[in-house]
Amino acid sequence: MTDPEDLATQVRDGELRIHELEEYADHDTAAEARRLYVEQETDTDLESIGDYTFPAERAEPNIENMIGAAQIPMGIVGPVDVNGEETSSNGGGAATGEHYLPLATTEGALLASVNRGLGVIRTAGGADARVTKNGMTRAPVFRVKGVAEAAETVEWVNDNVDALAEAAESTTSHGELLDVEPYVVGDSVYLRFAYDTKDAMGMNMATIATGEACEIVEAETPASLVALSGNLCSDKKPAAINAVEGRGRSVTADVLIPGELVEERLHTTADAIAEANTRKNLTGSAKAGSLGFNAHAANVVAAAFLATGQDEAQVVEAANTITTMDARQREDGASDLYASVSLASLEVGTVGGGTKLPTQSEALEILGLRGGGEPAGSNADALAEIIAVGALAGELSLLAALASRHLASAHEDLGR
Amino acid sequence: MTDPEDLATQVRDGELRIHELEEYADHDTAAEARRLYVEQETDTDLESIGDYTFPAERAEPNIENMIGAAQIPMGIVGPVDVNGEETSSNGGGAATGEHYLPLATTEGALLASVNRGLGVIRTAGGADARVTKNGMTRAPVFRVKGVAEAAETVEWVNDNVDALAEAAESTTSHGELLDVEPYVVGDSVYLRFAYDTKDAMGMNMATIATGEACEIVEAETPASLVALSGNLCSDKKPAAINAVEGRGRSVTADVLIPGELVEERLHTTADAIAEANTRKNLTGSAKAGSLGFNAHAANVVAAAFLATGQDEAQVVEAANTITTMDARQREDGASDLYASVSLASLEVGTVGGGTKLPTQSEALEILGLRGGGEPAGSNADALAEIIAVGALAGELSLLAALASRHLASAHEDLGR
Amino acid sequence: MTDPEDLATQVRDGELRIHELEEYADHDTAAEARRLYVEQETDTDLESIGDYTFPAERAEPNIENMIGAAQIPMGIVGPVDVNGEETSSNGGGAATGEHYLPLATTEGALLASVNRGLGVIRTAGGADARVTKNGMTRAPVFRVKGVAEAAETVEWVNDNVDALAEAAESTTSHGELLDVEPYVVGDSVYLRFAYDTKDAMGMNMATIATGEACEIVEAETPASLVALSGNLCSDKKPAAINAVEGRGRSVTADVLIPGELVEERLHTTADAIAEANTRKNLTGSAKAGSLGFNAHAANVVAAAFLATGQDEAQVVEAANTITTMDARQREDGASDLYASVSLASLEVGTVGGGTKLPTQSEALEILGLRGGGEPAGSNADALAEIIAVGALAGELSLLAALASRHLASAHEDLGR
Amino acid sequence: MTDPEDLATQVRDGELRIHELEEYADHDTAAEARRLYVEQETDTDLESIGDYTFPAERAEPNIENMIGAAQIPMGIVGPVDVNGEETSSNGGGAATGEHYLPLATTEGALLASVNRGLGVIRTAGGADARVTKNGMTRAPVFRVKGVAEAAETVEWVNDNVDALAEAAESTTSHGELLDVEPYVVGDSVYLRFAYDTKDAMGMNMATIATGEACEIVEAETPASLVALSGNLCSDKKPAAINAVEGRGRSVTADVLIPGELVEERLHTTADAIAEANTRKNLTGSAKAGSLGFNAHAANVVAAAFLATGQDEAQVVEAANTITTMDARQREDGASDLYASVSLASLEVGTVGGGTKLPTQSEALEILGLRGGGEPAGSNADALAEIIAVGALAGELSLLAALASRHLASAHEDLGR
Repeated sequence: MTDPEDLATQVRDGELRIHELEEYADHDTAAEARRLYVEQETDTDLESIGDYTFPAERAEPNIENMIGAAQIPMGIVGPVDVNGEETSSNGGGAATGEHYLPLATTEGALLASVNRGLGVIRTAGGADARVTKNGMTRAPVFRVKGVAEAAETVEWVNDNVDALAEAAESTTSHGELLDVEPYVVGDSVYLRFAYDTKDAMGMNMATIATGEACEIVEAETPASLVALSGNLCSDKKPAAINAVEGRGRSVTADVLIPGELVEERLHTTADAIAEANTRKNLTGSAKAGSLGFNAHAANVVAAAFLATGQDEAQVVEAANTITTMDARQREDGASDLYASVSLASLEVGTVGGGTKLPTQSEALEILGLRGGGEPAGSNADALAEIIAVGALAGELSLLAALASRHLASAHEDLGR
Repeated sequence: MTDPEDLATQVRDGELRIHELEEYADHDTAAEARRLYVEQETDTDLESIGDYTFPAERAEPNIENMIGAAQIPMGIVGPVDVNGEETSSNGGGAATGEHYLPLATTEGALLASVNRGLGVIRTAGGADARVTKNGMTRAPVFRVKGVAEAAETVEWVNDNVDALAEAAESTTSHGELLDVEPYVVGDSVYLRFAYDTKDAMGMNMATIATGEACEIVEAETPASLVALSGNLCSDKKPAAINAVEGRGRSVTADVLIPGELVEERLHTTADAIAEANTRKNLTGSAKAGSLGFNAHAANVVAAAFLATGQDEAQVVEAANTITTMDARQREDGASDLYASVSLASLEVGTVGGGTKLPTQSEALEILGLRGGGEPAGSNADALAEIIAVGALAGELSLLAALASRHLASAHEDLGR
Repeated sequence: MTDPEDLATQVRDGELRIHELEEYADHDTAAEARRLYVEQETDTDLESIGDYTFPAERAEPNIENMIGAAQIPMGIVGPVDVNGEETSSNGGGAATGEHYLPLATTEGALLASVNRGLGVIRTAGGADARVTKNGMTRAPVFRVKGVAEAAETVEWVNDNVDALAEAAESTTSHGELLDVEPYVVGDSVYLRFAYDTKDAMGMNMATIATGEACEIVEAETPASLVALSGNLCSDKKPAAINAVEGRGRSVTADVLIPGELVEERLHTTADAIAEANTRKNLTGSAKAGSLGFNAHAANVVAAAFLATGQDEAQVVEAANTITTMDARQREDGASDLYASVSLASLEVGTVGGGTKLPTQSEALEILGLRGGGEPAGSNADALAEIIAVGALAGELSLLAALASRHLASAHEDLGR
Repeated sequence: MTDPEDLATQVRDGELRIHELEEYADHDTAAEARRLYVEQETDTDLESIGDYTFPAERAEPNIENMIGAAQIPMGIVGPVDVNGEETSSNGGGAATGEHYLPLATTEGALLASVNRGLGVIRTAGGADARVTKNGMTRAPVFRVKGVAEAAETVEWVNDNVDALAEAAESTTSHGELLDVEPYVVGDSVYLRFAYDTKDAMGMNMATIATGEACEIVEAETPASLVALSGNLCSDKKPAAINAVEGRGRSVTADVLIPGELVEERLHTTADAIAEANTRKNLTGSAKAGSLGFNAHAANVVAAAFLATGQDEAQVVEAANTITTMDARQREDGASDLYASVSLASLEVGTVGGGTKLPTQSEALEILGLRGGGEPAGSNADALAEIIAVGALAGELSLLAALASRHLASAHEDLGR
């Protein structure tokens, strides 16, 4: 009965359903049976998909109907040099020192580009990075009869945040309710709950806690819950509310690069890079009606997410980045380059979700950030800061390439 | 000299740089040496990352500084039932019949949810899906002296699209220039080139072709190229220009589900689903300042992208989806559910990029869509349509869950 | 020397500058002289512009280089019936009872349309309206050296809101600082100050108070003020931050209209109106990448603003409205129409600015809302609520017209 | 029977309805009667509102239920110096030479600020301005059964633009159909019709023409019209589709100001202005999720609209502006200031609508742009260009004020 061929046959004969196989065999056998069935149905050979090297059982919390694994090439960039030490004038960041950053991608040239940027950052003495806001959100939508009940509900919520916190926090040992913000649209009331979920990305924690708080809202106000997510969260959608108010970590990274270094290593000037950034990342994105004012931050975010077991669909909002590049004139008349990236809603965790899978777990080990941090939340903060520096390196490298190509072509023009 | 330990030592001693290893050894040995080096530097054991099962050389176009692979669990949903047959009244879609859709993800419950939706769609007779627009875009930004030169440039471009097409198409055997749209902001001129890139996602093809066309623009107008991408493309950013005008494939899928089926299989009603969709996906997203009017289309898009070797960073705009759900009253007074998803900018390909890697290639085989289609472009069209139906299933299942939970709770309310 | 001809001659001869005339003559004579000068320069006859009927001196706080006035036709709609009475279950709104609403416009058919909607609302028993949030904002931008200083500044601000409030409130007898929200983008720190400005629209009050608070920020943190407005306010721009978080008053109005009334007076059905609203105001606006999910709320807002002396340029964000229209099924199977408008950022005042001019002041008198309210802020609240009901009437009337035309055409179709 | 007191009494007694008065008396008497009635009902004295000085009958196309007029102070700025002459290298703009620009507003200091900017522009030799795109849009929404019919409809429309043009243009002597762009969202199809409406703002012309074209669409495709406006137009809403694709006139104006002039007249430097613009208008607006990347363009647009009889509610999208300010380094090391404004969707006309009212008509006379231009459309083009230069002056003046205040404070800092 645990022979995969037999199981596949039973599926084909309609005696078993494809998602029931784990009831009749261990996870690897079930995956093999499913693969056999699909191979026969689609006349394919799924040898590579079946060539995964982790126990299928470990993926149980992550997938159903498993047939194997996608293997995405993983490489390494770095070291990422982060100046997070506490000084007299500031409290420091979560990440300090040098870290290799694993990236999984199929986008050729990405790692080379990021690595070039990281090298320049190292020579410039490292980047600063800080998480300036933190809060995982969930925003249920309630139905009321109309605006009078809506106003009543809003008032009750504003007066009873403590009761909501008590209910919400009863469901979690780690999470803390930070804020509840009400929004009214006609006979819909949205309550945006924000939590400190420590080292977990926290979407599930926030959902469960909010569900508990909703029961109080329903009991004490005229509002009836329609959906536990009313899209003001906003999860996996490119929404201004996240770009403005943040979700997960709001993190900024920057570096000041001496003009000489810009010329030697990036073959261009601070002014040329600043011009390209302004015309492309600021003015161009403005004209495009964009929420993303950057060159390709999503490349780094997506590749780091894949490598470290983050939620790949959250790349949508996690990549929300404003990149600034300015020429700062020195007293000697030369110009240095100030470059920054600000990611408004980077949802990351070092526990839970895909972080426990073998390759992903090892990738977090490389960063020294596997599992919960000390204090709680510091590992996820550090991961956010390192990804931000990686994104900064990618922006720097690409903008410099654009600017130097332009300079080169300007030189050709002169040579005509 | 090709001993990985030796190579790692040389890197540690500063005799070799980490990205040079492929010059001294085959790709697998280079990856092993790099892994050894990182293991020592970070005091880790990267056994799982090193346990990839494809020849490292095959990933050469996709990654630098390779150390191994991320293994992402892959499962199967379906069959996806697409009614694309040509009829007397319409030209048909690219995808027809039943397809198993492979999805790679770490998001537990996702495949179960999509599968439930696909089951209902099958029972309802399948979904319709159509690509209604197609064009991969690249938008360089040029510098002019000011508005007078900008107007002159725009006029020249509008008068010389043929010359631009000739230049652009000289670089590609497949691509066709469809359109060039100029935009002016002060002394910046942006030209948005759109191409039919057939079965390739086409970003590289579009970039190279546009580079060639830019030379003509620079030669014939006062405009100077600043950056080959000026962010009106807009690649890997959540921009309204993509949501409005499309990028890659604009694809819509829909299904009409009999009320009885909604009740039996989804345990709710068309009215309840429509209400949840309106309050959450339409009104909630409106209030959130969102470009995404859906529940979780990004989950399906991201998982299908990973499985089939698409560019994971393009999930940012590829997931741009408007979901509609309406109760359609029948003559007998009962209500059926009309559900649709419209993805404005789904960038997909069945050739090039990550599609050639072993597991990804097999995933495309499962769909019957590996490589170029006949006619050219039809495989990528079909892939877009199938992903759209997958997203539709995911929306349907999640909205139904929200609505039925709500109904359940309404029943409890009555029982008090 | 106070002869207008003489003054005009002196301007023409270059002996006086056009903006200096009030130094040499009373305001009406200065305006006449300026008019004479312009008439000669442009070979025109400005009799109508000169035919204004208020003392020019009264407009001194409102205009420079005055030549006369634009006369915009003003009409009346109403009564606007607002159910704002306090009940056992809610605190009531600021506006109650019936009010005539003056509107100034050149848009033919607008008042007729709004009036039709108001008639239906009256017959339905009046509309509910509530201000659910209130806060006039000003957001200066500061320069810091980088992210470390930015984090330090944010931390200081979060810890010292009381000190900022003390400074800000020292400049005003009425205003209260409600909140300061920091936002970081690279080396820019934005602080969004929100004030309760009572019956004043409050932009000036907020600016002055914020200026004072900025001095503390500059003294106590490394941040240097770059601009007193950093566009996160956001004044006179269509910004998501206002649509999401509000500015001025966030106000919602709604009404439940019996199905019979929809049919008799609007010649259509709740279902047809709901369909038109969903396809146009929700889905259509979603596809347009819009921040405005309504049909023509700006018409009513602009006309009420002109009539009552509000800032006409703030129509940009004051018109930010989400309109919802739903068919609510009754127990007898018939459907009533629930209609609502939610204006996120309606900036209004009943004191200051243009409200003191003669015609504008009389318009506020018609509403019974001239000057400060009792309690302070209640007049501006009531004005917001009445404008919201006016906008609701406009939406209702236009949507009904679209739906009935459609029904009519549907009937024709049947007759073919 | 034409005694206003009598009429007012009859309204009070319910014998006449307030909107019927024009049937029983001339327009001025009707307005007086209505005023009397309102005065009694609201216990007010509407003397100023009644003190309008144009024949009420002239306002018949513009208002219903007229009671009088709002008098908005009007002033003059300028001359606005526009370099529109045709040169060897470009086709010239529509506006040339010097124009006084009338502005009606209640915003104190606005005209002084704009005037200061215009003075600097004149000394710098005038501004360039060009309309780079022109098209008034109307976008009906149609219902189809689903995506298959949607695809069919889109295909028919793309193949039959000529037939649609013929139908549309049959309703107008001036308008020309430029383009029809289809958009699909589930079972809704939107067709965005764009017209050259010459010197008319053209909303009505576009609506009527589109209505005619819709009949062909309904006759030839499965699509049924739901609403003549489906919000992809998008009229009087802040929508990205307008900011990206334009509506009415897309117009850009710019000026290059010598560094010496910036210092003498604006008391600051090109670098300081550029910094303020970048942090506020670009980065600040980016962070605010804005569609408006400017300081206060809406002030000038709104005031010019009021003065010249444009549609005040269209200020919402007409003010959509990107402002750029850059320091351009000269060969001698000094920096000049390049400043530009780009208004994407400025809807203006010199015929029709409010332009025929007496004060508004005189305001257009001042500009030399009353009525139709030669060639048709040139007056509206010129009006757009002049308003753009006015907006440029306003931006310049405000940004300079912010920058100089900052410089002043920087000097104080040094003095400590």
